[in-house]
Amino acid sequence: MLIDKNSSIPLYIQVYNNIKKMIESEELKGGEKLPSIRTLAKKLNVNNITIVNAYNLLEKEGYIFSVKGSGTYVRYGNYDVSQYLEDNRDVQMMAEGVLPISKDCINFASVSPTPELFPIEEFNQSLIEVLDRDKGNAFVYPEINGYEAFRASISSFLNKSYNMNVDKNQVVVISGGQQGIDIITKTLICPGDYIFVENPTYSAAIASFKSRGAKIIGIPILEDGIQIDVLDEYAKKYKPKFLYMMTNYQSPTTYSYSEKKKKELIRLSEKYNFYVIEDDFLTDLNYDNKKKEPLKSIDNLDKVIYIKSFSKIFMPGLRIGFMMVPKDLLTSIIKAKHTSDISSSGFLQRAFDLYLRKGYWQKHMENIKRVYAGKYQTMTKELAKLSKYNISFHDPKGGLSFWIKLPKEIDAIDLYNDCIKSNLAVVPGKIFFVDDSLYSNYIRVSFSAVSDEEIVQGISILENNLKKKYTNNNNKYIPFI
Amino acid sequence: MLIDKNSSIPLYIQVYNNIKKMIESEELKGGEKLPSIRTLAKKLNVNNITIVNAYNLLEKEGYIFSVKGSGTYVRYGNYDVSQYLEDNRDVQMMAEGVLPISKDCINFASVSPTPELFPIEEFNQSLIEVLDRDKGNAFVYPEINGYEAFRASISSFLNKSYNMNVDKNQVVVISGGQQGIDIITKTLICPGDYIFVENPTYSAAIASFKSRGAKIIGIPILEDGIQIDVLDEYAKKYKPKFLYMMTNYQSPTTYSYSEKKKKELIRLSEKYNFYVIEDDFLTDLNYDNKKKEPLKSIDNLDKVIYIKSFSKIFMPGLRIGFMMVPKDLLTSIIKAKHTSDISSSGFLQRAFDLYLRKGYWQKHMENIKRVYAGKYQTMTKELAKLSKYNISFHDPKGGLSFWIKLPKEIDAIDLYNDCIKSNLAVVPGKIFFVDDSLYSNYIRVSFSAVSDEEIVQGISILENNLKKKYTNNNNKYIPFI
Repeated sequence: MLIDKNSSIPLYIQVYNNIKKMIESEELKGGEKLPSIRTLAKKLNVNNITIVNAYNLLEKEGYIFSVKGSGTYVRYGNYDVSQYLEDNRDVQMMAEGVLPISKDCINFASVSPTPELFPIEEFNQSLIEVLDRDKGNAFVYPEINGYEAFRASISSFLNKSYNMNVDKNQVVVISGGQQGIDIITKTLICPGDYIFVENPTYSAAIASFKSRGAKIIGIPILEDGIQIDVLDEYAKKYKPKFLYMMTNYQSPTTYSYSEKKKKELIRLSEKYNFYVIEDDFLTDLNYDNKKKEPLKSIDNLDKVIYIKSFSKIFMPGLRIGFMMVPKDLLTSIIKAKHTSDISSSGFLQRAFDLYLRKGYWQKHMENIKRVYAGKYQTMTKELAKLSKYNISFHDPKGGLSFWIKLPKEIDAIDLYNDCIKSNLAVVPGKIFFVDDSLYSNYIRVSFSAVSDEEIVQGISILENNLKKKYTNNNNKYIPFI
Repeated sequence: MLIDKNSSIPLYIQVYNNIKKMIESEELKGGEKLPSIRTLAKKLNVNNITIVNAYNLLEKEGYIFSVKGSGTYVRYGNYDVSQYLEDNRDVQMMAEGVLPISKDCINFASVSPTPELFPIEEFNQSLIEVLDRDKGNAFVYPEINGYEAFRASISSFLNKSYNMNVDKNQVVVISGGQQGIDIITKTLICPGDYIFVENPTYSAAIASFKSRGAKIIGIPILEDGIQIDVLDEYAKKYKPKFLYMMTNYQSPTTYSYSEKKKKELIRLSEKYNFYVIEDDFLTDLNYDNKKKEPLKSIDNLDKVIYIKSFSKIFMPGLRIGFMMVPKDLLTSIIKAKHTSDISSSGFLQRAFDLYLRKGYWQKHMENIKRVYAGKYQTMTKELAKLSKYNISFHDPKGGLSFWIKLPKEIDAIDLYNDCIKSNLAVVPGKIFFVDDSLYSNYIRVSFSAVSDEEIVQGISILENNLKKKYTNNNNKYIPFI
């Protein structure tokens, strides 16, 4: 650190400039501890007050934060999301299954189901029955918050599926989960507001929050849920509007919250008065006997905004989902829905309603769980073959993906590029991190859009590419010879 | 104006405070000319420079604006929309036909068609054919910008209907016109940006622009389109991001742009580099032989973002429309669509595509034009009976409404309330004005959701209420005795 005592620039500004530059150039990284005031003052041969002033300015500008009794740290993410994510919307869309990929390519990227799994016969029957039953009324404006009978069906569906006791008047029908995120963004975020997300998380949510000028802070997620002590510290510090999270089979990590973490999270949401946005798109897909429940099921404080998406467990192109909205937000959420698109298609709401009422949903869920459980087992078995490459992963026991940690010497983006060249699409972990995180040597592999045969082939392609990495990597570690 | 020369408050601040108060209390109204600097200085017995400083501060804070060579004026609308609009979202929704009204009430409020007019048979046929033809593929994610075949159909529809020469790749499918407005808002507005609207205009557009922190300025609209000289002055002054407008049968005024005004508008959009958002929901409904064309048809500069809504001419609950997007905005618009709801229902896009390809659209348009022309004639005839009450209105020769100017002594909100009590819903003009305008003694009466019989009854109820006004109004004018 260069300090010029003869300069006309005040000493504390010089210290500030030096540290700022080191953070911006990533010489100092998110979470790194800065030297104590006394230590740095002594080292630079300046007064303590010079360092205090420099640290205060850095904190005010959001570069660092201090934790009482612990010290001063570099903030994770400088309110800006990973440049990689910004530059790679195509990868993001591939990961959602929105961007179709070449037929020659094995698709471990998409988490969307493929048409063979759609319950077309029963759904078509519902569509046709609605046309016959409701005639022109199927195409009038439905209520802004959704067709009333459908909201009632949803309410009883939630009660039956997840012990969630909710009034149909707190249900708001939306055109898919992404619209739920967009509407909440409009309702709650003013430019400059802090919002928290799990890090890593769903990238299109980030895009929505960012578009409204939110300052996005990522909180690390562990195998049993978000890191509570960090959440506590940060919530005290930043007073976030909300935390965006996924309770079960989180994307991309596949982690699920323990019951203990769920309760702690609800407690903190009360303590620091923030909402929790629970994005639920996979809860139903458990392959063990432990059926999971959403966070909303234990939300006795009405702090959780629950978003239910059917894109990954039903049909992605349907574009119908719903939210469970806390009472104090209901009026503003419905207003934002009105401003967004007036209402979701009444015809599709009526058909989905009938589909639920006829009990087709249970039948469909049993079917896809059976199919996905098989693919999950195949992929588990195949991935075991890669253990010699020093990869590691959590067993999700549900959901549609595995989150694979690569050894440090392998660059996930390189591996992703190599795989694409050999006709295998995986998702590089980097697109899920809100900052240019240290911890991005991950790939996500999903089994939602592939057959058992393709799983075997795909893992074999992955193995070949891992093998090459080890061979190329200065022969540091060649476990297979 | 009170000036205290012995006060410690500088004289120019005193002048500023006085004028500010007069504007805020509406003693001085939008558009009103302020005295010249010399005149006011002389009157108050202060230096010219005192007035210059006061005017400069008022201008900086947005209370007034000066036009070179002409003088200084009070700004229309202080960046805030009418409180009446804010407080009366139910009236706004009734006017859109989103909020259903009591069956006993004659509905002159809604501009949405009623189910008898929906081409259910042909559309159902298209839906069923798509289910049969595409099976599960009908429910996969469509492209974000829309199902390709549908975009091609739209492109040829535009060419055929309005001589609009557009590439299918500039078409973006949306979930109704309101979503188009929302997506443009996200793409173009940063908080504090100026945007222009016709005054009066569509209130749910205002809600969208305002939610993003836009400063909204209304430009008066005349019988042949927007007031060009005001637009010119204001555009020079405020550098707006865009002008939001309706070319044909504007809502609520029913006015249509002359060819001359269209060209002048395009010229100004180039001169001051702003986009024009053309919201087209009624162009097709002419009842004379002069088929109108959208502004986009003559947009040789690619400055017009064209939004086509089908809610008022097809089926409001369908929630499918499209935009024609200038090339330089295409990437950001598609990104905003992705963030909003990923994509519009692929199933409905496929069905609408088939409906267009089968030529059903032409047949439907002929049918509704015939029906609406009949209602238009009935209402014209009935309205003629009200001429003795000093009302006046423009003959729209198309569209779905009449915009009725009431004599000054009648309060439109009172009349609206009286009509509601006697089971007639009309729309008070006030909800369409962006400011608490002088010019709000209007009501809009629409014939979209009523039968010929109801038109006769409704106008008779309106007449009774007008009659009462005259009787109650100190017998100023009793034309009917």
